[in-house]
Formats: sequence, structure tokens, C-alpha cells
Amino acid sequence: MLQQLRQFRDERDWAQFHNSKDLALALSIEASELNEVFLWKKAEDADPVRVREELADVLLYAFQLADKYGWDIPQLMQEKIDRNAEKYPADKARSSSAKYDKL
Amino acid sequence: MLQQLRQFRDERDWAQFHNSKDLALALSIEASELNEVFLWKKAEDADPVRVREELADVLLYAFQLADKYGWDIPQLMQEKIDRNAEKYPADKARSSSAKYDKL
Amino acid sequence: MLQQLRQFRDERDWAQFHNSKDLALALSIEASELNEVFLWKKAEDADPVRVREELADVLLYAFQLADKYGWDIPQLMQEKIDRNAEKYPADKARSSSAKYDKL
Amino acid sequence: MLQQLRQFRDERDWAQFHNSKDLALALSIEASELNEVFLWKKAEDADPVRVREELADVLLYAFQLADKYGWDIPQLMQEKIDRNAEKYPADKARSSSAKYDKL
Repeated sequence: MLQQLRQFRDERDWAQFHNSKDLALALSIEASELNEVFLWKKAEDADPVRVREELADVLLYAFQLADKYGWDIPQLMQEKIDRNAEKYPADKARSSSAKYDKL
Repeated sequence: MLQQLRQFRDERDWAQFHNSKDLALALSIEASELNEVFLWKKAEDADPVRVREELADVLLYAFQLADKYGWDIPQLMQEKIDRNAEKYPADKARSSSAKYDKL
Repeated sequence: MLQQLRQFRDERDWAQFHNSKDLALALSIEASELNEVFLWKKAEDADPVRVREELADVLLYAFQLADKYGWDIPQLMQEKIDRNAEKYPADKARSSSAKYDKL
Repeated sequence: MLQQLRQFRDERDWAQFHNSKDLALALSIEASELNEVFLWKKAEDADPVRVREELADVLLYAFQLADKYGWDIPQLMQEKIDRNAEKYPADKARSSSAKYDKL
């Protein structure tokens, strides 16, 4: 997957634009387009075809940003899962949508 | 990974909050926190430790949203890569940051 | 108001950070914090005190960005209201949440 | 201005969509479109015509959200300016882009 993303970028000579700040911005813009699919609607009325496309765009930029820093994605996700388990102990966080500092 | 995320959610009884609209919103909020690491700074001055953490949060919500719809992540990314290759032909898009409809 | 914002900025020597790209990014981050007040909740369960504060932050950056370009805010809003009235004719857009290009 | 926005909304029967959560989401989406004008570019290379339009969209939703709660905009901005003056004392915050809790 990363191999393909790099090749796609390099065939278009786009590495010049892909600094980490703009990659993060691009990710955020795609996240916003994902949210637009749900705007003025109930969750179940959003078009899944469009959700899928916009989510893919988010993921593609997320992977490219990780690649920019040379990070391993499963590893950074695993670390965060472990950290969240500490921040949100199951017994304190049960059935609550509060942020960790309000538990 | 998905197995862990589901268990984490269920031990906290959080499935009740996790409708797709709010998952997309949560993803977007994390994307914004990722951007905050770069705010008022050059790309290279952003703290990589914080970038890594916020990117992990984005990815965790992206995976949970995909899981909500029962989607396979490598597959939806592959589809989008193929579609982008059509929208941005290498010869037209070379060295340009224009959107596909301006090429 | 603008007078105060400029004085606030200059007493802190912050003009150096306030390029238009980062001002737009700051605005977007505040917009996201505004959305966080509604996350996992129904509209009516969001804390109005926090909504008010985050909305104020959005407006402060919006005013500063307009000021950066030397724009008059009531005038740019009026122009957009006029343009929207053309894009969304009352008879076609009635009771529809569709985007103008889908009407 | 508010009078016009209300009339615009009511002629299209859009009040049904305008709950505060979706208004905040719409604002955030417009903020993201504003950022898209700057994407992959230096601040000075962004098209001012597009910046102006997207900023207007942000402001229109900000005004509608304030109106939804019955708030006076100059007043809520003034309150926030006063609060920021406390959070960021001029002598401590000078020439620093740090958040108030890091000063």
C-alpha cells in the first residue's frame, strides 16, 4: 500500500507539496468532507458510498503522513490503544462520554 | 487491532455513543488536534511525539468508523488509489497541486 | 472591536505568527473545539456556556483574518447573502437540505 | 443582517435542519473549505477572492448559531477578549506562540 502511494506521488512529482504540515491539513480537509456527508442528516441517512470514499481519503493522507515520518502504523496505533486503556479505566469510564480529565 | 478496539469499547459500554455521525465528528476533532501541533509553526518545528499521538487518534476513529460499516480497510483504500489514478493522470497532474477538475 | 484585537496582538508581539494561512488554521481548530462541545450528545444537551466561548474564539479569528486582508465584515457577509440567494432560489430549495448543484 | 438571514432561512423552510449541532458542524465544514484555499501553498499565494467567500460562509453560520441561542455577537466577543487578556498577560505571552497553560 505505502509502495503504491509513494509511486503515485512520485509519478506526479508531488513530493514537493507533501510537507507534514500540509499533509495534516489535507487530512483534516478530507475529514471535513467526510462530515459533510452527515450534515443536516441522521447518521443512518448518510450515503454509505460517499462515506466510504471520504474515509478512504482520510486514511490515504494518514498513511502518507505516517510514511513521511517513517512510522509503522500498527505500532503507533497499538501504543495509543495501550495509553487509552490507562487514561480510561473500564470501571471509571463505563457508560460515560466524559473526557478522561472529567472522570 | 479491530478486536482490541471492540473490546475496549464494550468494556466501557460506549457502543451507545458510537453512531457513525459522531464517529466521523470525533475523527474530525482529532484531525484538528493533529493540525494544532503545527499551528504558528514551520512543518519541521512541530513536535513529532505529539504528531504521532494525534495521528494515532485519527486512525483509531477511522478504523472504528470502517468497522461500524463492516468495511475492509485495505480494500477501501485500494479502491480509492485506483480511482485517484484515473482522476489524476500522471502526465496531466505532474508538478501541479491543482484539483482534478482544474487540470 | 478590531482596534482592541490589534492592540491585544501588538502588546504580545504576535503579528509575526499571524499570517493568513495560520489564522485560517487557528479558526478551523476553534471551529473543531466548538464541535467537541456537541460530540456524543444531542444538540440540546451541549453546554451553552462552552458553546458561547468556543463560538467567540471562532469569531475572533474570523475578524482577525478579515482584518489581515483589510476587509469590511458586514460588506463581505452581505455579498455572500446576495450570492446565496441566487444559488438557492427559494422555490427550488424549499424544505431541501441538498447542495445547490443537486437542486 | 440577522433579519436577512432569518428571512432567507424561512423562505426556504430550512429551520427544520438548523439545530445547533448541525449549525456548528456546517461552520466547521466551511472553515475547512477556507483552509483548502491555502492547501499546498504559501499564505501569500492563496486566492483572496476564494478566501473572502469561504470566510463569509464561516461568518454566516457563526451568526446563525449565535442567533439560535439568542446571543448578542459583539457582547460575546467582548467577553472573550477580556478573558483572553487574563489568560495571556502581555508580559508573559510576549513573542511566544505557546498556549496559555504552557506560559
